[in-house]
Amino acid sequence: MNKYQFKIIKRDKNSSARIGEIRTSRGKVATPVFMPVGTLGAVKAMSPEELEKIGYEIILANTYHLYLRPGDKLIEKCGGLHKFINWNKPILTDSGGFQVMSLQKFRKISEEGIKFQSHIDGSYHFFSPEKVMEIEHSLGADIIMVLDECAPYPCSYEYAKNSAELSLRWAQRCKDAYQKMNGNQILFGIVQGSIFDELREENARELIKIGFDGFAIGGLAVGEEKEDMLRIVKLLDGMLPEEKPRYLMGVGTPIDLLENVERGIDMFDCVMPTRHARNGSAFTKNGRLTVRNGEYKEDFRPLENECNCYTCRNFSRAYIRHLININEILGVRLTTIHNLTFYFNLMKDIRKAIMNDNFMELKREFIERYNGGNDSES
Amino acid sequence: MNKYQFKIIKRDKNSSARIGEIRTSRGKVATPVFMPVGTLGAVKAMSPEELEKIGYEIILANTYHLYLRPGDKLIEKCGGLHKFINWNKPILTDSGGFQVMSLQKFRKISEEGIKFQSHIDGSYHFFSPEKVMEIEHSLGADIIMVLDECAPYPCSYEYAKNSAELSLRWAQRCKDAYQKMNGNQILFGIVQGSIFDELREENARELIKIGFDGFAIGGLAVGEEKEDMLRIVKLLDGMLPEEKPRYLMGVGTPIDLLENVERGIDMFDCVMPTRHARNGSAFTKNGRLTVRNGEYKEDFRPLENECNCYTCRNFSRAYIRHLININEILGVRLTTIHNLTFYFNLMKDIRKAIMNDNFMELKREFIERYNGGNDSES
Repeated sequence: MNKYQFKIIKRDKNSSARIGEIRTSRGKVATPVFMPVGTLGAVKAMSPEELEKIGYEIILANTYHLYLRPGDKLIEKCGGLHKFINWNKPILTDSGGFQVMSLQKFRKISEEGIKFQSHIDGSYHFFSPEKVMEIEHSLGADIIMVLDECAPYPCSYEYAKNSAELSLRWAQRCKDAYQKMNGNQILFGIVQGSIFDELREENARELIKIGFDGFAIGGLAVGEEKEDMLRIVKLLDGMLPEEKPRYLMGVGTPIDLLENVERGIDMFDCVMPTRHARNGSAFTKNGRLTVRNGEYKEDFRPLENECNCYTCRNFSRAYIRHLININEILGVRLTTIHNLTFYFNLMKDIRKAIMNDNFMELKREFIERYNGGNDSES
Repeated sequence: MNKYQFKIIKRDKNSSARIGEIRTSRGKVATPVFMPVGTLGAVKAMSPEELEKIGYEIILANTYHLYLRPGDKLIEKCGGLHKFINWNKPILTDSGGFQVMSLQKFRKISEEGIKFQSHIDGSYHFFSPEKVMEIEHSLGADIIMVLDECAPYPCSYEYAKNSAELSLRWAQRCKDAYQKMNGNQILFGIVQGSIFDELREENARELIKIGFDGFAIGGLAVGEEKEDMLRIVKLLDGMLPEEKPRYLMGVGTPIDLLENVERGIDMFDCVMPTRHARNGSAFTKNGRLTVRNGEYKEDFRPLENECNCYTCRNFSRAYIRHLININEILGVRLTTIHNLTFYFNLMKDIRKAIMNDNFMELKREFIERYNGGNDSES
């Protein structure tokens, strides 16, 4: 039974930022929300218990990857993805369109769908919109995404136009296939159109006509200039129905999150906190800190003084540096816990600031301090 | 202040097995005990919190490895090993004699000590008995070991004799150096002598004369026949002072633990549960289960039905197999938690059986079931 509801709780006075709540049959999600990425059915290095302890209410998984390994049918047999990975809160599955485009050497796109080779064993597979809906149904995530073609960047206007129009027809087919299933999942459309305003507008307009439970913005954070991303998001902020959640896929740095919350985005996902953690890089309010570096050798302070995560309450930079340098798993676990806590707390601070009508102030102060710190790159 | 005390609580009626308690200023350790190996200051893949949750009261660390990385002086500056790694219960440090022998291509043994090359960067180092006492003092473990030469297996009677006599002279020098330090650590001697009864007897006799807080048996589990190991342990059971703890170094399989508890051993350490975990192999009462294997692909049961560990309460063989196959850290974490729980529970069962005067029964039943199971190799 679909208990889906999206409720806006408060709008910021000085921007398009808003706080809301996504309700699903597996619990609620406070927005704006950052969703940790659990591509293959595990947020790298983390246990579900640890994610819950930080406070996460939703995680991401990937249809393409789970379809190849361990297989959607196996997961269905187990009773669905939640049961398989022991995560009882909401899950969102991406459709795999992006992965097919970015991971595959061989892929052939036709009206019907995408033929591609597995990146694991080279075997051939075919994703149609209907097939992807079927896989996402087997996995049983709470929020599912339509199959889209994620255009590469840069690409010509012509390519972007054809690609966005194809994605649109696929979106309609996904919707049709979805309606024939028992339909207790929440279905999101994905706006494409590269960095061309006209194409984005046209694409959004048509997707809205088809009608979805929420709208994702795809095809950004793929190499374009920051201003292009922000312009497109602002454009879509003016077009997408206010009462539906908006999800900016694959974004981003802490500053990206602030910039796009300002432009009306409710949902984000990104591998950045977990990937940087594995490289020994920790997010702090003063910028990123590469704890691997020699300068932290005898630094017995926590990664971040103000942080209250398990890592910062118990371990020093010197110890974490030692663990990372000897390739000890615990090192990656500790930086991952910290980074995911940092992202969680940032979103919590954002929600609180919107509630208190000082979001723009939070944004300004955060960016000033973050860029003045160790590492202004992200 | 040294609050060390070893108390025997109960002796088995039908064997040399005994339950006891080692008291240290950082808490007590119930014996017979298995000590997880945290060579470089972390039990691989585990957090200290998880070890405590399982019930572990003591862990091992290695002097040689910590001396090279991150350095004993750095650890001393941090306030000692306990603080550095955030483990507040007892720690035992091995002296590094075994590692110098097994890891180094270049090593030169003289009366004075061992000259060796670092396995990391090829730099030259020198361990004398006095130097090792100094390092172990800097690290600050609760129980420390003398420097010994661990003779290779097989070796000639002549080699073993000279080696054991050298280790004896080093033991005396360790004791002397130890007495000049402020001496609030618990110092163990190590009996050497390969598989030659006469040498072991002579060596034990002289070590007892020097006087130590406990006695370790080194140079076993290095490739000799099982009967040789058991014969030497039985021999020493008849010689070592009953009121001091006995520690069989580097042992072993679940069956080894039972066999040697029967022969009066109180303490064990081994990388087996953690190393097998990393290879996707889980200990169960029916033998080892290689969860990586294809046969567990759709097996939605826990690793072991009767097990109450975090892993078995929450995850299936199919999921763990998937995680191990995609090289996901969580997979190794889950098998490690399970294997360390298995070893902990085995020791708990052993202590309980000794208390109830049915240790030999437990041993017989355990071995029968274990060897009748999936994998009789260990």
